[in-house]
Amino acid sequence: MKRIDVQRKVVTKNDRIAAENRKIFKGLGAFVINMVSSPGSGKTSLIEATVKALKDEANIFVITGDLMTDNDAARVARHGIEVSQVTTGEACHLDASMVAEKLETWKSEKCDLVIVENVGNLVCPASFDLGEDVKVLLISVTEGDDKPIKYPPMVRASSVLVISKIDLLPYVDSDPETIQANALKIQPDMKTFRISCKTGEGIDQWIDWLRSQLETKRRIRERL
Amino acid sequence: MKRIDVQRKVVTKNDRIAAENRKIFKGLGAFVINMVSSPGSGKTSLIEATVKALKDEANIFVITGDLMTDNDAARVARHGIEVSQVTTGEACHLDASMVAEKLETWKSEKCDLVIVENVGNLVCPASFDLGEDVKVLLISVTEGDDKPIKYPPMVRASSVLVISKIDLLPYVDSDPETIQANALKIQPDMKTFRISCKTGEGIDQWIDWLRSQLETKRRIRERL
Repeated sequence: MKRIDVQRKVVTKNDRIAAENRKIFKGLGAFVINMVSSPGSGKTSLIEATVKALKDEANIFVITGDLMTDNDAARVARHGIEVSQVTTGEACHLDASMVAEKLETWKSEKCDLVIVENVGNLVCPASFDLGEDVKVLLISVTEGDDKPIKYPPMVRASSVLVISKIDLLPYVDSDPETIQANALKIQPDMKTFRISCKTGEGIDQWIDWLRSQLETKRRIRERL
Repeated sequence: MKRIDVQRKVVTKNDRIAAENRKIFKGLGAFVINMVSSPGSGKTSLIEATVKALKDEANIFVITGDLMTDNDAARVARHGIEVSQVTTGEACHLDASMVAEKLETWKSEKCDLVIVENVGNLVCPASFDLGEDVKVLLISVTEGDDKPIKYPPMVRASSVLVISKIDLLPYVDSDPETIQANALKIQPDMKTFRISCKTGEGIDQWIDWLRSQLETKRRIRERL
């Protein structure tokens, strides 16, 4: 009981900081993604593909979270955009204060798109709002089609599902229809994509959707 | 600070219950595995292959942990052994009390091998002793070769590494040598296996090793 109380306090404090982050992001007029998945579902690869496609038309800022190493930050930084690494040590998720800290030291004043790559963990990041517009959940076709119903809190917390690594479909027992149907059972409004960062399949649809989100934010900025 | 104190108390209480579980397992003379990995690395498939190979020569008890669904328990139960499901709700790991509860209701008096399939999570289960002999860590070749150095607490907590889904090696950018070398940097004594539950490759070596562990336990029982 005590444990649950403490957890509630931690989440409440987090929600307060997340609300402050959200204000900052709103001030920038930026679209903000909190990208979540199991370890190794391809978050960094999707971020690389996104940066490659959009860096000439949008100011992008990426925050990558990991227990240890700055491997992911280094991969994204190769594409010549601003990247900041959070190393959590033993913490199993990013929280709003970690993002707030990065926003303080962050130099850019113009920003259209912020992508936060969470720690690879299909459970804990579901409980921690970072101030994002949407949680984008990746599930790769190698993970088993029942993952959405086995990890419902994360599906419930996410607005977008990206089914990744579809180039591996001929070699694994997976049906993306089943993954999608299982996710929609829990979160019927979920927007879904199917992609392969290896072959590029489906990336255009993802980028088109992102462009429409950036366009919406641009219109809101102009109205202010 | 407060949060860390509470976490320490939770872990200390867990350690006490784990020690009690360990006594029960010792009384049975059973070899006990705590199987950990990311979601979808193939824990259930490896348990199925293990049960199939050993059920005629050993009494096996399996405990499967998931946030939701009893899919894994149903898969293992098909092989005609005793299986018990822990549904954790929102909890990101099994703890020793969940295992203790299952041991209380458990009918069998003869047991050689207990396999506990933890919640798919490469972070949190590292901190929770269940009373096992060894943590067996699965990493599939689809997850990225740097996973051991990105999730060092779990590697440090584990004695055995199983590199899984090696049938997919022709189709992914992975080198099992690198996965293994990265793990050994953190845990130099780690025993390693490379397996495919799809083709059966490497399963014999895994089963041979398990047999030797069961034999050691049998000798200890006879000496008592």
